Amino acid sequence: MTETLQPGAKIGILGGGQLGRMLSVAASRLGFVSHIYEPGMNPPAGQVADRVTTAAYDDAEALRAFAESVDVITYEFENIPTEALDLLEAHRPIRPGREAQRVSQDRLTEKAFLQGLGLQTAPFADITDLNSLNAAIDQIGTPAILKTRRFGYDGKGQARLHAPEDAGAALADMAGAPAILEGFVEFSHEVSIIAARGLDGQVACFDPGENVHRDGILHTTTVPARLRPAQRTDAVLLAANILNALDYVGVMGVELFVTPQGLIVNEIAPRVHNSGHWTQNGCAVDQFEQHIRAVAGWPLGDGQRHSDVVMENLIGGDMDRVPDLARDRDVALHLYGKAEVKPGRKMGHFNRIAR
Amino acid sequence: MTETLQPGAKIGILGGGQLGRMLSVAASRLGFVSHIYEPGMNPPAGQVADRVTTAAYDDAEALRAFAESVDVITYEFENIPTEALDLLEAHRPIRPGREAQRVSQDRLTEKAFLQGLGLQTAPFADITDLNSLNAAIDQIGTPAILKTRRFGYDGKGQARLHAPEDAGAALADMAGAPAILEGFVEFSHEVSIIAARGLDGQVACFDPGENVHRDGILHTTTVPARLRPAQRTDAVLLAANILNALDYVGVMGVELFVTPQGLIVNEIAPRVHNSGHWTQNGCAVDQFEQHIRAVAGWPLGDGQRHSDVVMENLIGGDMDRVPDLARDRDVALHLYGKAEVKPGRKMGHFNRIAR
Repeated sequence: MTETLQPGAKIGILGGGQLGRMLSVAASRLGFVSHIYEPGMNPPAGQVADRVTTAAYDDAEALRAFAESVDVITYEFENIPTEALDLLEAHRPIRPGREAQRVSQDRLTEKAFLQGLGLQTAPFADITDLNSLNAAIDQIGTPAILKTRRFGYDGKGQARLHAPEDAGAALADMAGAPAILEGFVEFSHEVSIIAARGLDGQVACFDPGENVHRDGILHTTTVPARLRPAQRTDAVLLAANILNALDYVGVMGVELFVTPQGLIVNEIAPRVHNSGHWTQNGCAVDQFEQHIRAVAGWPLGDGQRHSDVVMENLIGGDMDRVPDLARDRDVALHLYGKAEVKPGRKMGHFNRIAR
Repeated sequence: MTETLQPGAKIGILGGGQLGRMLSVAASRLGFVSHIYEPGMNPPAGQVADRVTTAAYDDAEALRAFAESVDVITYEFENIPTEALDLLEAHRPIRPGREAQRVSQDRLTEKAFLQGLGLQTAPFADITDLNSLNAAIDQIGTPAILKTRRFGYDGKGQARLHAPEDAGAALADMAGAPAILEGFVEFSHEVSIIAARGLDGQVACFDPGENVHRDGILHTTTVPARLRPAQRTDAVLLAANILNALDYVGVMGVELFVTPQGLIVNEIAPRVHNSGHWTQNGCAVDQFEQHIRAVAGWPLGDGQRHSDVVMENLIGGDMDRVPDLARDRDVALHLYGKAEVKPGRKMGHFNRIAR
């Protein structure tokens, strides 16, 4: 296969956060060399990458030079400006492909795409003005949540509606941005499945993990998740369905609500995912290497788990726990090399391994 | 403890080969930043380190600047010139300490040290001239092997004596360098134990591995090694004995011959060791992270094994096997990012995990 990268090949990674950092380390294990593109100064990924370009996503010259310096381009986040992707793609392949970016950048497009595949989602409606919002509330009911369709608003752009009367205030919070109303789903717990698809169409899934959030940020992922065998099979089949429909190449995180009516897709992320960090200490080939393998056109690992794991994020001041965690014989630490501790900032995570 | 490094601290690594590379990756997992010092251009470790200094070991200015840029200094090989270590140590702590370098740089000193601890070694004698060589042959017998006392002769400096008549030719091979005659040991197999000692004196050992060499280069390490429980205990105790005697901080590789008369110490290496690479896929904390933990003054991992592993080196043209190995679901690959394949050159290794 001419599209298969040989050791020594260069992998460009858009984004220099902790995901780019762990992708870079995984790339090195397979003999690849990483080049990070990141607008921010001193990105965590830069500490373990061969090269870093510090430039904005509208710097055409820097984008071109970056693309020409690598063999393939991948990314650690789904909100890369379309113009930047256009320019990059003129020079080098981008994996996962553009369609995954297009679908996941827009909540409405994503939900419509998932429904088109016959998958269950939360009830939703396209909101353009107060009339369409009131009509949607009639249909979906309250409580519900109004969200901007596109991300990248730095946590803003979400408003909860407790009653129909909240419509006007919630719409004002959107500041004129296109929005989507989502109904609430009654679920017992949330799981996610980290799935991968190779350049040859091969699909491999890691075991689903069960997620617990705190203050809107992932807190723990426990593997194995509480799922009946039939639900486990469903999760694998629906993930494969999504990957195949997008002709996807790489790792994707699929968040699922577990309900008596079956699995409901909450969200897809076309990249390695926080809820897949447990694979670093549970599998021979972790999600980061799996992604690099896919992007490089290599065969995928099979995703088999050798250990049960609970992953827990270290957020902000949780870094004070590191000395105690370092003493815990069942804990494997993964710190991100971020200089400044900030509230809500992901500073690292640890995997507690069941023995 | 003031000597404990905090995440964000900088670790200087002397040597930019594959061991420095894997140390650098392990350091990043704990949030440390690596700075490599290496005379050769484009060192493999440079691809995953934050910073590289390319300079010779007699470049006082570069050594000083390197030392002042880091919080602690460690190394990937035992033959660093004494003058360089003197200069570096004037600025920053070197771990493992100088005594380990002094002992392991000289075969005679090393064997005398081991015997002084009551440990068994191959019979040996100090050789200064033909008279002392003939006397040693009388005592030790043939076959035997004449070796230069100090290493770093690029594979040269060893001559096998099949009979006493070989003495003159063998001595000529030493080219006047101080030498040591070693008798042969009858052993059933070779094992090695990767042991670590923390800054607080805590000792932790990984399970011994069984080594097979080909053409003088390590070929495979199989874990667990064939050892009776009493031999396993002996291996741990003698390793701890060596580490404590040197007030050692870091990981050490101890090669042992298994004989009916007990374990005989072949060689010690004051660093992470090729025969410990299996720990990357057999343990939560591998030998590289264990070394960084010790050097940083952190608590050690306990060395417990979650999987049986066979490590195999990829030497020179073995790189042709990579596509097949990538397809093998039980194989975890570790490639070193070396641009040029040369016969006898270590290009990578893989760990085959027992399921």
